[in-house]
Amino acid sequence: MIVIGERINGMFKKVREAIQKKDAAAIQDLARRQVAAGADALDLNVGTASTDHVADMVWLVNTVQAVVSVPLSVDSARPEPLEAGLAAVKGKRMLNSTTGKEVDLGRLLPLAKRYDASVIGLTIDEEGVPANVDKRVEIAAKILAAAQDAGIPTDALYIDPITLPVNCAQDQPQHLFQAMQQFRMLSDPPPHTCIGLSNISQRLAEHQLLNRTFLIMCMAWGLDSAIMDPLDEELMRAMITAELLNNRFIYADSYLEAYKKH
Amino acid sequence: MIVIGERINGMFKKVREAIQKKDAAAIQDLARRQVAAGADALDLNVGTASTDHVADMVWLVNTVQAVVSVPLSVDSARPEPLEAGLAAVKGKRMLNSTTGKEVDLGRLLPLAKRYDASVIGLTIDEEGVPANVDKRVEIAAKILAAAQDAGIPTDALYIDPITLPVNCAQDQPQHLFQAMQQFRMLSDPPPHTCIGLSNISQRLAEHQLLNRTFLIMCMAWGLDSAIMDPLDEELMRAMITAELLNNRFIYADSYLEAYKKH
Repeated sequence: MIVIGERINGMFKKVREAIQKKDAAAIQDLARRQVAAGADALDLNVGTASTDHVADMVWLVNTVQAVVSVPLSVDSARPEPLEAGLAAVKGKRMLNSTTGKEVDLGRLLPLAKRYDASVIGLTIDEEGVPANVDKRVEIAAKILAAAQDAGIPTDALYIDPITLPVNCAQDQPQHLFQAMQQFRMLSDPPPHTCIGLSNISQRLAEHQLLNRTFLIMCMAWGLDSAIMDPLDEELMRAMITAELLNNRFIYADSYLEAYKKH
Repeated sequence: MIVIGERINGMFKKVREAIQKKDAAAIQDLARRQVAAGADALDLNVGTASTDHVADMVWLVNTVQAVVSVPLSVDSARPEPLEAGLAAVKGKRMLNSTTGKEVDLGRLLPLAKRYDASVIGLTIDEEGVPANVDKRVEIAAKILAAAQDAGIPTDALYIDPITLPVNCAQDQPQHLFQAMQQFRMLSDPPPHTCIGLSNISQRLAEHQLLNRTFLIMCMAWGLDSAIMDPLDEELMRAMITAELLNNRFIYADSYLEAYKKH
């Protein structure tokens, strides 16, 4: 599993305040702790309350890459902070995200190509979030074809079938499982699949239990990447155990510790 | 999910001792606690150390049904205690188990029919435990056809694809997921699927974590029954959450409590 740490996001109050005050130590602490806990990459999102998305994103990138060397996922719904963030990253980078809308594919895929960035592609198009499997697969195929046309290698593409809160769309998890399986049949090698895990449990009472249960179910269907909280210890233990049961590394009695050191 | 409580089994030292001493209170305590924790049925197995399998099984059945009214799963590898146990059960009963061997199908399915018992059918045949998906499905189809010929309704049939310890057969979970999905396509209505959950983690350090992770993965692929430990609280919370994500009951903030009262 490719674990993309979700914690540096302006939707969290402490992060929002740290960005406003330019409190580098607070952000760097979150960066170091997520990497120490097993994050393979870190997502950076300034949040909707930012008054200067471009400057805040560049500050986040520089603040974080001063202390950790993992790939950074530049996360914004706007093209300007995406470009400024990608330009600021010195190591490996990820563009989070494009949709399947023509306008997004047309302006964001060339950006990803220019900066040699991986891309998260959300299965949304001009009609919104699909309610069924076929439409999700159709949009995924469109994103995949556009990425190939733009010169982005398939193993740099992460298709996200869009996770909705379980209390709003309780029939959706089964659709996502099927969609993820079908994404893997779109090409060889297949694109990665990725979810924004915490969306399943937004503001719900049992959010940690819901998150880890949903993650394991998705992994049983081939999910190989998630934006998630590496500081949730039970979540990481569940993830590692599902990796073991998916035969991704060899069993040892100390497999939980062994995985962290891999 | 149909939870079949696994705890009354002579392989556990305390249960073995209780059976030897005919300590009804100890067995009845385990029966009551499993049902209170959410067991839909209870498995009864005298264990290999029993010196009189028939008498011990009849004693277990009578001891347990004196205090709980859930269906009882009469669990033995020998036909005599199976028959004696089924005859002793006053309520709903389950025969655990037949294999796909001709000799077992020929003598055990008529027994199940005579006592109106549900049947767990293990995908083992004369050649042993299959290493691949196709052979498991082939044996499942054979058991299903034999059950139909014997007059056993398909919704009384529970196909078990055989779970091996993950440290012995690490490639097997993915085979099981595929097999379980295919079992459901064998008939309409489909047979139930069932696993002996604790087999995945026999004598392993992280057995509870392995059990609940594997259960959730199987449930994502359609598993609807397991012989498992209802006294493992985290396991039951995971199971209920996977049921929710499978859209088997409606979300409420108190869904964990609501499910237990269903």
